[in-house]
Amino acid sequence: MKVYTFEGAPNPQRLAMFMRYKGIELNTEVVDMANREQLSDAYRAINPDATVPCLVLDDGEVISQVIGMCVYLEEVFPDKPLLGHDAKEKGQVFSWCHKLSNGLFLGIASVFRNRSKGFVDRALPGPLDLPQIPAMVERGMAQIHHHLPLLDERLAESTWLAGEHFTLADIDLLTAIGFLGWIKEPVPEELTHLHAWLVRAQAEVA
Amino acid sequence: MKVYTFEGAPNPQRLAMFMRYKGIELNTEVVDMANREQLSDAYRAINPDATVPCLVLDDGEVISQVIGMCVYLEEVFPDKPLLGHDAKEKGQVFSWCHKLSNGLFLGIASVFRNRSKGFVDRALPGPLDLPQIPAMVERGMAQIHHHLPLLDERLAESTWLAGEHFTLADIDLLTAIGFLGWIKEPVPEELTHLHAWLVRAQAEVA
Repeated sequence: MKVYTFEGAPNPQRLAMFMRYKGIELNTEVVDMANREQLSDAYRAINPDATVPCLVLDDGEVISQVIGMCVYLEEVFPDKPLLGHDAKEKGQVFSWCHKLSNGLFLGIASVFRNRSKGFVDRALPGPLDLPQIPAMVERGMAQIHHHLPLLDERLAESTWLAGEHFTLADIDLLTAIGFLGWIKEPVPEELTHLHAWLVRAQAEVA
Repeated sequence: MKVYTFEGAPNPQRLAMFMRYKGIELNTEVVDMANREQLSDAYRAINPDATVPCLVLDDGEVISQVIGMCVYLEEVFPDKPLLGHDAKEKGQVFSWCHKLSNGLFLGIASVFRNRSKGFVDRALPGPLDLPQIPAMVERGMAQIHHHLPLLDERLAESTWLAGEHFTLADIDLLTAIGFLGWIKEPVPEELTHLHAWLVRAQAEVA
């Protein structure tokens, strides 16, 4: 098994935290996203989606999305489960991961990729070159400041996002908050439950 | 357990096909999305995300995202698995579901919600009112016509999206192709593998 990755970017960080927490060590090769190596013919021969990270299994099959890699790895390395302990927690983990992906994460990506000078004509990840849409920056900001208080409310009533255990949902939120730093948008001070969770969550992956 | 749903919409259709295939019957209440009942105080007291469908568990806890509902239901009703038979297939199911959600589905939604007269100021699902961005229609079209040929390529080499079995990934693609009809964008005729898959997949859920 082999991971192609580039630790600086958000999606690789999700996978790295998942693996480190569970104590999984795999053969790793760096794809230099800073120089757009993910768009090279050599990498696209491995992962046609041209996204990073990807996981190549022993039989050569490729899993290209982090959530799929985590599902596979949790099956093979069940210790220290990060995808839920029982049916209800499992349901909530996947629900929260999807909600984060489709909400806070998409909002941050909208701001970052439609505003950054380095991403002109690279408004979405993957091989498709698309122009930036400046109005998406405002939409992204609205999504971010809609979702952050809802996360604060959730973390007022629950130690971890999906319930009683630290899970991939928390890893995804940690990653999203790191990604917020890329657009210089701090978590508002008044979201005290989210700030308290951040301290707890960082200790889990330290 | 109880499902709040509105069968005409894409996300409720995913859940309905998943349940029907597995023979799961649950107490159901319709939320009249045609009249924006999902935004009512009464529904938001049940599901603060104001999205449809949602699944209320016996202990009152709510799962608000379809992928989470499917994970929960597969645990409780394991017969006729739709989330994969082994580690590799499970990984691929979640990978494909995410790729569809973040790719083809998002593309169609971008066209539909940023162009339809009925969605002025309702450019995203959920409680946040956001103005349409006409440029997102063009971006969405580019995403659609980028992803459809890739799906055709995948289905040239594989009977089903995630491997040897019909899974939620196929249900999600069926739903996405139905959603394509909403924006009057047919699957191009030359994508013959995708068309052949469509016949197979429709037979599975008939």
